[in-house]
Amino acid sequence: MDEAKRILAGSFTPRPVGSEVVALSDAYGRVLADDVVSSFDIPPFNRSTVDGYAVKASDTFGAEENCPVTLRLTGRVNVGEAPKARVQKGTLAEIVTGAPIPEGADAVVMIEYTERKGDSVLVRQAFSQGENVMKAGSDIRKGETVLKKGITLSPYEIGALAAIGSVKTKVYERPIVAIFSTGAEVIEPGKSLAPGKIFDINAHALSAAVEECGCESRNMGIVQDQPNQMKTALQKALKTADLVITSGGVSVGPTDIIPKVLNTLGKPGVVVYGVAIRPGKPTTIALVNGILVFSLPGHPASSLMIFHLFVRPILICMAGRREQEAVTVKSVVSERLFPARGRRTYVTVTLRKDQSGRIVASPVSTGSSGAITTLSKADGFLIIRENQQFIEKGSCVEVELFKLNTYSSLMREEAQ
Amino acid sequence: MDEAKRILAGSFTPRPVGSEVVALSDAYGRVLADDVVSSFDIPPFNRSTVDGYAVKASDTFGAEENCPVTLRLTGRVNVGEAPKARVQKGTLAEIVTGAPIPEGADAVVMIEYTERKGDSVLVRQAFSQGENVMKAGSDIRKGETVLKKGITLSPYEIGALAAIGSVKTKVYERPIVAIFSTGAEVIEPGKSLAPGKIFDINAHALSAAVEECGCESRNMGIVQDQPNQMKTALQKALKTADLVITSGGVSVGPTDIIPKVLNTLGKPGVVVYGVAIRPGKPTTIALVNGILVFSLPGHPASSLMIFHLFVRPILICMAGRREQEAVTVKSVVSERLFPARGRRTYVTVTLRKDQSGRIVASPVSTGSSGAITTLSKADGFLIIRENQQFIEKGSCVEVELFKLNTYSSLMREEAQ
Repeated sequence: MDEAKRILAGSFTPRPVGSEVVALSDAYGRVLADDVVSSFDIPPFNRSTVDGYAVKASDTFGAEENCPVTLRLTGRVNVGEAPKARVQKGTLAEIVTGAPIPEGADAVVMIEYTERKGDSVLVRQAFSQGENVMKAGSDIRKGETVLKKGITLSPYEIGALAAIGSVKTKVYERPIVAIFSTGAEVIEPGKSLAPGKIFDINAHALSAAVEECGCESRNMGIVQDQPNQMKTALQKALKTADLVITSGGVSVGPTDIIPKVLNTLGKPGVVVYGVAIRPGKPTTIALVNGILVFSLPGHPASSLMIFHLFVRPILICMAGRREQEAVTVKSVVSERLFPARGRRTYVTVTLRKDQSGRIVASPVSTGSSGAITTLSKADGFLIIRENQQFIEKGSCVEVELFKLNTYSSLMREEAQ
Repeated sequence: MDEAKRILAGSFTPRPVGSEVVALSDAYGRVLADDVVSSFDIPPFNRSTVDGYAVKASDTFGAEENCPVTLRLTGRVNVGEAPKARVQKGTLAEIVTGAPIPEGADAVVMIEYTERKGDSVLVRQAFSQGENVMKAGSDIRKGETVLKKGITLSPYEIGALAAIGSVKTKVYERPIVAIFSTGAEVIEPGKSLAPGKIFDINAHALSAAVEECGCESRNMGIVQDQPNQMKTALQKALKTADLVITSGGVSVGPTDIIPKVLNTLGKPGVVVYGVAIRPGKPTTIALVNGILVFSLPGHPASSLMIFHLFVRPILICMAGRREQEAVTVKSVVSERLFPARGRRTYVTVTLRKDQSGRIVASPVSTGSSGAITTLSKADGFLIIRENQQFIEKGSCVEVELFKLNTYSSLMREEAQ
């Protein structure tokens, strides 16, 4: 496993595949490909933060509750308008929250400290320069970097882009991942189930897993284990995709046809030929003229596990996303667990709270039975190292979660 | 706040708005609207789980390493084919993993316990009935409920749907949410910034927030604070949407025009008129002929906070999703915090680990300055209750996270 990862890291450095410009309304969930710099001061003008009167602060100096200053009203400033009023010594202008400060004014007197008498306004408190004024550019300065590249755009960042009037956003392209299944026994779901056939699971589950990484999947369906058909399918996939995933081929074996074909298609060809882990031993990884090809096991739970361990981190980098650290949960194992002989073993588990509040990890069968129903029951996995003889029932282990929100579900159980 | 929630719960029960049928390739991320029942036994036939020979188990009884039983080879069964061979007493058929068990056979002898001699095979171990056979229906039985309604379809569930050949899936419709902004000062981002104008943030940020809940947003842009324009916009929104959100209207005030217009459009009209919290006091909630209308504050951070507290839980129910329990993180506050007088106060904070590994919550200004840039810096919020005088610097509080993956980011910091 470690060697496979080392070889992979040595032969391929995942990078974003490109960038494109999208409208603000399509930017949610995408990943910024460039730092975003504001072309404007935000706010673009000095703004009142209260309802009241725009004044020259110096005109209010000395004003007190019992000793008001009287100033002459020269006009009114509304929000959304260029102020027509001009505040000169001895005058003030009515203003509302959010409206631009008129020329000559440098503070805003809150309405509760004033009294209106016809065209005159009594001010009963002194205000200093800048009080109740939000200065132009105090939120964002023209030329300032507002968002850094690599961030996934949530509602908050969409709001920041809108704020600076950025309606076109440069985001990373979604890598295109071609996916096909092989095997004489698999047929497309929905077709009639001829004797000896089963419905293809992997191309569909892996397509969804690829989308979950921020990539676009191209489900190429089922390809027969014939060298020519395989070669045609792989050539087509390599032409259109940024990464290729195949799975299955139990009868003839991916260790037979696929690696041979891959070695004829480009350099360096197969770089990893089998990984000493369970499940996932027959995993083959090739690099064909710069494009990675993963050949995953046919067993659905195994192929999703290998996807999680090997493919997902690479696709996340290629999509420009920041890799999330795995979230692990301390749990107690429900039974004694044995590794596959001499191989690092990944045990898929479900998690639940027991009556004493401990989180208990129970293995999900990834063997021949329960291959399908258990897929949707797995919360995460634990690892038995090559040199471990077993993990004792009741001992404490770290379980890595498949889905982050399993964490909040467990918290909810706790709250009940 | 509690009363507003009570009134809301008493006048409106959020329910999924409808269901639609989508193709398997479009089902990822959608929410199942019906239990899914299998029309097939999975596997559809008795399957070999190993490479070897299909036999009558009784023919191997008594076989041992030094005392093999000799059986006659009658044929071979491949994967994906109806078996032509028939196993009778004294015979066996070659078989590979995943291939159907031929008629007459009830066990599979693993190849490593056999020796081939022309048309005869020596079997060196006894096998019991059913050994190395995965029975038809052992994974999923015909008529069995495979997935329960209400689940959000992840790659694992997509795999389960494929397994049972389910290519059309009934999922909940995405509720349609109409959104517009009001205010004389706001203009569409991208337009030229006339004096006194600022770019509209809310319609864009709220559209993304609505999508995050599994709904479709209809951004209707900016509507002027004029009763007729407002009435036309609200009527249009109420006709096309399952829920309506407006924000802003500072100059004339949402407490003026919008509630009046809403009360003319249908019953019961405005049900909540202002909420005693900070930020978000001017929030107005109306129910117009069964459709909820939320009028949120104009301040972007406030409107997103009120969305989070009031609107999001309702939209999640309407989208058919299960509500996620809030994830909270224990943190230490960086400074003494005061509530707004007499109002429950929601303080937006950023979280970071300090050198001793404690998580420190620092308030993000939601006041007049920093309204925009800080939007994208907020990790979550803490609550100061109405009856609390202040929260002391250094005291321990629960911070509710806006984004679940903040949790894993904090874990990553810990790991470093």
